[in-house]
Amino acid sequence: MSRISVLRESRIDPHYFDTYASLMTTGNGYMGVRAGFEEDYPEQTRGMYVAGIYNKAQGQVSSDLVNLPDVTRFEFEIDGVIFSMHSGEVQDFERVFDLATGEVCRELVWQHPNGKRFGLCLKRFVSKKELHKVYAKVAITSLSGDADVRIRTGIDGQQTNFGTQHLVEKSLRVFSETWMQGDYVTTQSGQDVTVTSMISAPGSFAAKNRQLLVTVNQKLAENEPFSLEKVSVIATSLETENPAEFGLGEIRAAKSYEEALAESRGSWQKFWQDYRVEVTSENAFDQLALDFAAYHLEAMTPAHDERFSVGAKGLTGEGYKGHVFWDTEIFIAPFHLYNHPEKARKLLRYRYLHLEQAREKAAKNGYQGALFPWESAFSGEEETPEFAAINVRTGKRQKVASALAEHHIVADVAHAVVNYYEASQDELFMERDGLQILQETARFWLSRAVLKDGKYVILDVIGPDEYTEHVDNNAYTNYLAHENVYQTLRFMSKYGQKHTAFYDLCEAFLRKIYLPQPDVSKLIPQDDTFLGKPEIDLSEYKARQGSQAILLDYSRAEVNEMQILKQADVVMLLYLMPNLFSEEIVARNLDYYEEHTIHDSSLSKAIHAIVANRVGQPEKAYRFFEEACRIDLEAAPGGTDEGVHAASLGAIWLSAIFGFGGVAIADGELHLNPRLPAGWKRLAFSFVWHGERLEIELESDKIRVTKDTTAPIQMHIFGEKHCMTTGLEI
Amino acid sequence: MSRISVLRESRIDPHYFDTYASLMTTGNGYMGVRAGFEEDYPEQTRGMYVAGIYNKAQGQVSSDLVNLPDVTRFEFEIDGVIFSMHSGEVQDFERVFDLATGEVCRELVWQHPNGKRFGLCLKRFVSKKELHKVYAKVAITSLSGDADVRIRTGIDGQQTNFGTQHLVEKSLRVFSETWMQGDYVTTQSGQDVTVTSMISAPGSFAAKNRQLLVTVNQKLAENEPFSLEKVSVIATSLETENPAEFGLGEIRAAKSYEEALAESRGSWQKFWQDYRVEVTSENAFDQLALDFAAYHLEAMTPAHDERFSVGAKGLTGEGYKGHVFWDTEIFIAPFHLYNHPEKARKLLRYRYLHLEQAREKAAKNGYQGALFPWESAFSGEEETPEFAAINVRTGKRQKVASALAEHHIVADVAHAVVNYYEASQDELFMERDGLQILQETARFWLSRAVLKDGKYVILDVIGPDEYTEHVDNNAYTNYLAHENVYQTLRFMSKYGQKHTAFYDLCEAFLRKIYLPQPDVSKLIPQDDTFLGKPEIDLSEYKARQGSQAILLDYSRAEVNEMQILKQADVVMLLYLMPNLFSEEIVARNLDYYEEHTIHDSSLSKAIHAIVANRVGQPEKAYRFFEEACRIDLEAAPGGTDEGVHAASLGAIWLSAIFGFGGVAIADGELHLNPRLPAGWKRLAFSFVWHGERLEIELESDKIRVTKDTTAPIQMHIFGEKHCMTTGLEI
Repeated sequence: MSRISVLRESRIDPHYFDTYASLMTTGNGYMGVRAGFEEDYPEQTRGMYVAGIYNKAQGQVSSDLVNLPDVTRFEFEIDGVIFSMHSGEVQDFERVFDLATGEVCRELVWQHPNGKRFGLCLKRFVSKKELHKVYAKVAITSLSGDADVRIRTGIDGQQTNFGTQHLVEKSLRVFSETWMQGDYVTTQSGQDVTVTSMISAPGSFAAKNRQLLVTVNQKLAENEPFSLEKVSVIATSLETENPAEFGLGEIRAAKSYEEALAESRGSWQKFWQDYRVEVTSENAFDQLALDFAAYHLEAMTPAHDERFSVGAKGLTGEGYKGHVFWDTEIFIAPFHLYNHPEKARKLLRYRYLHLEQAREKAAKNGYQGALFPWESAFSGEEETPEFAAINVRTGKRQKVASALAEHHIVADVAHAVVNYYEASQDELFMERDGLQILQETARFWLSRAVLKDGKYVILDVIGPDEYTEHVDNNAYTNYLAHENVYQTLRFMSKYGQKHTAFYDLCEAFLRKIYLPQPDVSKLIPQDDTFLGKPEIDLSEYKARQGSQAILLDYSRAEVNEMQILKQADVVMLLYLMPNLFSEEIVARNLDYYEEHTIHDSSLSKAIHAIVANRVGQPEKAYRFFEEACRIDLEAAPGGTDEGVHAASLGAIWLSAIFGFGGVAIADGELHLNPRLPAGWKRLAFSFVWHGERLEIELESDKIRVTKDTTAPIQMHIFGEKHCMTTGLEI
Repeated sequence: MSRISVLRESRIDPHYFDTYASLMTTGNGYMGVRAGFEEDYPEQTRGMYVAGIYNKAQGQVSSDLVNLPDVTRFEFEIDGVIFSMHSGEVQDFERVFDLATGEVCRELVWQHPNGKRFGLCLKRFVSKKELHKVYAKVAITSLSGDADVRIRTGIDGQQTNFGTQHLVEKSLRVFSETWMQGDYVTTQSGQDVTVTSMISAPGSFAAKNRQLLVTVNQKLAENEPFSLEKVSVIATSLETENPAEFGLGEIRAAKSYEEALAESRGSWQKFWQDYRVEVTSENAFDQLALDFAAYHLEAMTPAHDERFSVGAKGLTGEGYKGHVFWDTEIFIAPFHLYNHPEKARKLLRYRYLHLEQAREKAAKNGYQGALFPWESAFSGEEETPEFAAINVRTGKRQKVASALAEHHIVADVAHAVVNYYEASQDELFMERDGLQILQETARFWLSRAVLKDGKYVILDVIGPDEYTEHVDNNAYTNYLAHENVYQTLRFMSKYGQKHTAFYDLCEAFLRKIYLPQPDVSKLIPQDDTFLGKPEIDLSEYKARQGSQAILLDYSRAEVNEMQILKQADVVMLLYLMPNLFSEEIVARNLDYYEEHTIHDSSLSKAIHAIVANRVGQPEKAYRFFEEACRIDLEAAPGGTDEGVHAASLGAIWLSAIFGFGGVAIADGELHLNPRLPAGWKRLAFSFVWHGERLEIELESDKIRVTKDTTAPIQMHIFGEKHCMTTGLEI
């Protein structure tokens, strides 16, 4: 395996401080710690989040992923001057984020206003082995004679979610003049959070204004580095009855920075052995993007606990308040499903555990079955904020309609359940949890559709394309609802529940559900009215894609009445159901809808890459892939400030495997139709199917599939069925 | 009148950012706005406070003076670089705080990293004429060719009290693409707060994460300044039923910066005409200190509303959570009493209006009458925090005992009532409100004292010296309790309430109250045990006075068992009761107790100055005075970060008038025994007595008193009684 990529930052530009704070978030699924610089800047937002710790502050209608007390800040006072990269002069600055381990390491030489030079080396990581621990190490060396340094760090409970405080400080303590501890409780959800920290040198302690700080004064001699290590333990009542006691126990057992890093590296190595997608490309950026995606997809997934799922920004920031969307099932879960299916199962278990809340939401809205919330958090209740951006013309904030009408999430969850079963053949899950999800979601569609002229139609929905609201018979929604009910019948039949009234209702639904067909010009109408709406030239908005610039010129209502897509919609459907239409129809619709798509959603590009590749447009596919990779890694200022685009990272992985790798699942069977981009010599990845780990290695003229066991596996390669035991090479 | 002083800041040192943010707070009694720089720095704490707007966040046992949404921040992006005084190079930096008006004005030339130079001029003031308005003006000039500037400002609801959020955001609105408005409500006290802002140029608006911001993009041509004005209106439900409507009405009527400043200057001029203490000193610092004190004493006093009093840091910061202490009655009220007695009356009305809460506190603690809270806020209930600093040995926080035992505040309030009457002869107030306060406070002392060996003793108290807790018969407390009851009798008698059982009880109390007398060595024992405690050398702690450094070496319990004073205690008594003992006794006690006083309290030095002057130690007095003036104006980093020392500023005024000016009130009569310091040629001030404004001008060999009317006024000058009509000169 080639060396895992590193992400480098070498410019000091406050416009990008929060971009890199997101990109270089170190995490382990339990928690994420943003890469704020140790010293503070007004332009950077520190953040530490634990999966599942949400709270609604007074007056809030939806929960925030709570920004926890900070342990990353260090204030350095060198010869009486507070260190900042803006003051003095900085030489040889580089920050490196090692995707192999999630370690952030910054090195620089700082020239003090008094002329003396100092070397600083500042490192940090969250352990993958010890889920609750954050390790930091700071080293400072005087390069110009003796100097005085004062280092202050500790536990800073002044952190907020953009001014909203979610934690009551219960106590600040210092034990044995060594262990600092801050005990907090969330104001509404009532979760205890304890942060316990220690540093490796004696210091003096002080507690004030929600901060517990320790100060170390040190004389530096020329060229003799002074190192200080810090370990912090984060614990909550979600996983332990007494987080304070747990924190003290863990901190007593803390290792040195290097020991702990070695252990964590070991855990990450196991991950990379299984999950690495290796590419030999003319463009080194491709491997970086794939490694970046894989690191974050792993770091954002709370694989330790099925009560939580993945937020739209993972644990890297506060965008979308850390809420869980369809992103998890459609964009993120496959990454785990085809590598470690038990992690994908846990994500589905999250939905299963919240069927009750989904049923309540359905009932509240006048439907039956389970209507999963458009956004959810810990409780499983609907968390979509009531209002979005302000409209300066009316002075009012615009209502968010997704919670009321973006119902495709119901079918998306069902789709993921079936996908999970196809890949894992996990009858135990399917018969108990999976079937229940299928039935409850199918029940929802039966109540959601209405009979009109002898057909079941689904009215007043929002499809994936959020620039087109409140439409009838969105193709994506109708086809996925059909699949949802169809698969429910299939598994009811399989598990002996065929002879029920509900089964008959489902059959009737399937007979009558309206599925939009290609029109005379071979276009699948996105919804009943879309193709009749006026078109405008979108080139200037496409040039600024991701910024929602169109909303500066048009109101949402105006955008709604034109053929303008935010993101893949029909194309999304074509991706999920590869065999629904002929290649010709797919190509025609890809071209048409892409032209009308601004790609203002980060979920769009990579999906287009997959579909383009399938219809034999590899150059276009590679361009879409590259652009998808740049969404985070070459984000414009502001674009990634509030966290990485979790679903987009999942889609990058999808576009490698299901796009260029040519993997497809159709009717429960595995297909492989690889088409590598011109610049790629080789693509290698693992793919777990029916409990077998396949090692797939693709070159322009070679396909090699190997596996460890001799159990037979069937797969179609370029349409030809192969049954292999130990592997094959073509 | 000579020019009112200006306070200058000419170094850019983050250690002092918060010092100057406090010192240069612009305020008008309704609100105070800290002098945070327009651009943000991690080392500065912005703050805007409205008198009376307190709140207890969830989990808090005492109220905070709420830090309101910020209107002072401006982000400047110049040729793509975010302006900061740390980046680029700053030339000719100076910030001037004009004490004549409270206008803060910063000018500097900034060299952009691209080499271009820019002139910036950034101004701000809170209007004394329009209590609800903050005006700001920023001007930027390119000195090196064309440039692009982007200015972003607005209403920033991310402000917190050190991480504690007190406000729920109700709405953010933009009216007519001009007026921005943020509506908030405090989480517990339920006060509505509305901030309405506008700028003088068109811009684009955006609202997110508790911020409502407007952005202006501007091309600069060389040497053509671009100016932007901003007006903000702050309104709360304390003064209007509909703060949002009020805000819109006021902002429509807003004036230009210069017009509004001229109006505000007019209001300040009236203030200075009455309140100015003018000194001709060898040391220009003395006049600055007196002007600084007068400005802030005025800016901190909510003269518009008797429901509020003055917090320990005025409206300049969050120290002591904005709570009201004895500081108001003993240190601050006299400044108003002898200038505009109606303002002193309002401060007493605050106590009167909260007699009910004081009665409740007394009852809760097993006493009768009124026990005023040691710290109070809007409700009038006890607000002293339960815990103070952390003890790193035990790991626990120390309980604050003041609320339980620092009962002298009861007599301090009574003392202020009598002082008010003596100066104002306000029978209307005295017969109704004043007498009630006197009776209720006297009733407290009657229940608080216990009979022991035939004497009423007052056990287990804390006197003004907070390093000596839980002692019996603190001299200050016993003498003030005696005066309290004595004056109650006097006014009951005066207002025909002599023949009551309560009157008799008071008489009995006065006969038997134990009043510590000078011992054989002429020392008045601070309490029953003080003089028997061991002494230690305090010189190293005196050298670091104000920092409570002794508590780093000794626990509070250990300090309690030594002859160590935090601040004036017996000396305080001698100041308040000038005729109690002979000059010899006063001098002896001043010397003895001062030697044992660290002056860790800012209330100490100036009082020592007054007493030293009275006993003919002018050099010592001047040294104390100077040191008191330096408490804020030459604060060590951190010392004034959380606000100016309100009581200390009052005491500076007291030491000029009652110290060097030699004013004293004894048995209701006015005395003048001036003793100017060697370096002072002249001291001039107004003094309102019995409704007459006396202009007093003192030189080393001359006393001149003039007045406008011909009403006769009696005063003692150097012990000799004078009755004057239009004035006199000696």
